Amino acid sequence: MTDAPPTASALVVDLYELTMMQAYQLGGIDGRATFDLFVRRLPVGRDFLLVAGLATVLDRLEKLRFTAADLEYLASLGQFRDEFLQRLEGFRFSGDVVAMPEGSIAFAGEPILRVTAPIIEAQLLETVIMNLVHLQTLVASKAARVVLAADGRELVDFGLRRTHGTESGLYGARASHIAGFVATSNVEAGKRFGIPVTGTMAHSYVQALGDEAAAFRSFTEAYPDTVLLVDTYDTLRGVDRVIGLAASLGDQFRVRAIRLDSGDLGQLASEARRRLDAAGLERVQIFASGNLDEVGVKKLIGNGAPIDGFGIGTRLGTSQDAPNLDIVYKLAQLDDRPLLKLSTDKATLPGIKQVWRREDADGVVAGDTLGLTDEDLPGRPLLVPVMERGARLAGGAEGIETARARAASELRKLPRAMRRLDAGIEAYPVAVSDRLQTLRDELASRA
Amino acid sequence: MTDAPPTASALVVDLYELTMMQAYQLGGIDGRATFDLFVRRLPVGRDFLLVAGLATVLDRLEKLRFTAADLEYLASLGQFRDEFLQRLEGFRFSGDVVAMPEGSIAFAGEPILRVTAPIIEAQLLETVIMNLVHLQTLVASKAARVVLAADGRELVDFGLRRTHGTESGLYGARASHIAGFVATSNVEAGKRFGIPVTGTMAHSYVQALGDEAAAFRSFTEAYPDTVLLVDTYDTLRGVDRVIGLAASLGDQFRVRAIRLDSGDLGQLASEARRRLDAAGLERVQIFASGNLDEVGVKKLIGNGAPIDGFGIGTRLGTSQDAPNLDIVYKLAQLDDRPLLKLSTDKATLPGIKQVWRREDADGVVAGDTLGLTDEDLPGRPLLVPVMERGARLAGGAEGIETARARAASELRKLPRAMRRLDAGIEAYPVAVSDRLQTLRDELASRA
Repeated sequence: MTDAPPTASALVVDLYELTMMQAYQLGGIDGRATFDLFVRRLPVGRDFLLVAGLATVLDRLEKLRFTAADLEYLASLGQFRDEFLQRLEGFRFSGDVVAMPEGSIAFAGEPILRVTAPIIEAQLLETVIMNLVHLQTLVASKAARVVLAADGRELVDFGLRRTHGTESGLYGARASHIAGFVATSNVEAGKRFGIPVTGTMAHSYVQALGDEAAAFRSFTEAYPDTVLLVDTYDTLRGVDRVIGLAASLGDQFRVRAIRLDSGDLGQLASEARRRLDAAGLERVQIFASGNLDEVGVKKLIGNGAPIDGFGIGTRLGTSQDAPNLDIVYKLAQLDDRPLLKLSTDKATLPGIKQVWRREDADGVVAGDTLGLTDEDLPGRPLLVPVMERGARLAGGAEGIETARARAASELRKLPRAMRRLDAGIEAYPVAVSDRLQTLRDELASRA
Repeated sequence: MTDAPPTASALVVDLYELTMMQAYQLGGIDGRATFDLFVRRLPVGRDFLLVAGLATVLDRLEKLRFTAADLEYLASLGQFRDEFLQRLEGFRFSGDVVAMPEGSIAFAGEPILRVTAPIIEAQLLETVIMNLVHLQTLVASKAARVVLAADGRELVDFGLRRTHGTESGLYGARASHIAGFVATSNVEAGKRFGIPVTGTMAHSYVQALGDEAAAFRSFTEAYPDTVLLVDTYDTLRGVDRVIGLAASLGDQFRVRAIRLDSGDLGQLASEARRRLDAAGLERVQIFASGNLDEVGVKKLIGNGAPIDGFGIGTRLGTSQDAPNLDIVYKLAQLDDRPLLKLSTDKATLPGIKQVWRREDADGVVAGDTLGLTDEDLPGRPLLVPVMERGARLAGGAEGIETARARAASELRKLPRAMRRLDAGIEAYPVAVSDRLQTLRDELASRA
């Protein structure tokens, strides 16, 4: 199963990365740089991040090459010298990457990935690494909330039609599967990542067949154990037509579920359940979709709606309530020189860092500490080596199911308030070690 | 300049489209279907749409092919028969497309694109057409608001690092250029679409050089007419260092602008302007970035901030305040039979439709009417043929600059309240013709 990004061009870069690279080359600045990728602050409505996208990044780093057409285009801009373009022509990423494995939980300010490489290489990667980790971590973090809200009910990703492009739909399916979704409607994601694909029917099918009862009959002839969409005209009449079909088919009736896609889903589910049960169709499940996310799912379940599974689309695929993370990629060290910036509200922590996480006696996470890698702090270190000298290590070659299992396990360890999505009730404690704080203060006073 | 979508797979589809297609084939349903693409309701904060994405869709339709690997994957799912997979193997889009050209203005409920094709073909395209038009129309509509707010000042797209994937960054750059942005930092977008690329420098460059004055000197040696980023440590000290560089370089000093990226941009711009002017550097411009969109730009300009250009990133690239449109692709006719659905809050209009737009004596748009194509209604029809029998027509082969010129012209025709971004003050009138309304009511009463 290849994980090649759909846009595999080396020119997926902001121009300033290339101009800075050339300036480094011209100025003879070729030190070994360490950049941290982290989210400065969490958006309202998120109190943790579920990390995803690492496999995609590593795949890109291994394959990053400038084509002849890329170099020709760059030459046409009139600001790059031949010696720089020659450097790009032979470009291979030769650096090291340390990261939190996919399916880990992260908090604001914690490095989730760290690149150490010659500065000319590390600088090139700024935008592409931010972009790829941002998308999948954004969607995985939203999906994790839906998973917690659904409390064991089946979740299917329906996002593709309104995600920001087809690549976003593809990686959104991947991210939500890691977070705990069981399937996706996205066929390309099924092919590429081995995620189970599933689907029901559209209103257009019912319309095309002319009458709803005929549409149900015809569709179940092709797919006996399908899910029938009942709201094209009037939802409860649609339910009655499913019951009618069951009566006429007898033992041949194997429809797995009905799907509600509009109206008051809770009320309709209750009434549909009542009618199905009264007809002896207890085993026909109810599946609901339509503008849902963790808020809607939690409310429906809290009100006792008899819904067995949910299709979650636009609000998941665009992370609608928080469509971006304040993710950054910041220089923290050059050779043996720790560095920081002090821009208002955008200050960074210097040096080569690790994150340690402590758990209480019940296995619930109790707090993190950010320190320097050579410190010995209590807890479990979260950043692990995944790439060395441009080659993927075992830690960077996990399958998607390993990441999914880790996410399930890590979500179980969250404090109860976070699992209940009571965001903001208690801030998760992330401390800075004394040595790191001292280093930061020293550098700031000298800036 | 090719416009091939990054993810060119025919499997960018929701599974149900394929299962419905097979059911149509099995059931012998092969009528000619017409589907409308439209946005049901505009999100809060939008009172018009700037249409974009058509070129990308047409390119996809021309090239859509199932590969052997695609068919092998579909066969592995165990629900598709050989005769259906053979149909896919030979798939070529043979239908017609009518659309609003890119750079048009559209309102809620108006078809922006219409596909007429054998239903088995038209059904396949549902998700991919929605996805591609959605993304570019979403970003173009946001970008148009920033263009109106900037009132002639230079705008550059900085979105790539936090867009939802690399494809979203690519098409976001395209969409914002159509809307009126002058350049992008996205090099791939420059190569692929011929959009001017531009960039400044990052904080990392200043950090890497160790001291800010040295960094400015070194960067201007490589790029004499560059833009210097002044906020790595202390913004006004950074400005003073630029002034110091000018003093030491004398006639050789050709720095085009400084860039502010944090803090109170309005206050900092005023003080920076004062210091630059006092040093005789009136021609050094001020460029600002950092969490800006139309709201921030409008406020800065309204307060008289002396800012000459803006870099607009995350809030544009993710359309942060409204990260999705309620876009749908709905069956409106099958052969000579007009169709509708009545789902709660999701009802559709039947038949093959056109949109007519009227302008007042000053050329300001005055109202639209939705009617049936064979009606003769006042105003200019907005939907034009762009593809016939699978082949692109002249109307579907416009360049990006044509679309950009149209957008500029159409934005000028908007009512004053809309141009001032006073959203919601007056609703733009979109009427339904008597004949269309009668047809709809008749069909609804028979459903």
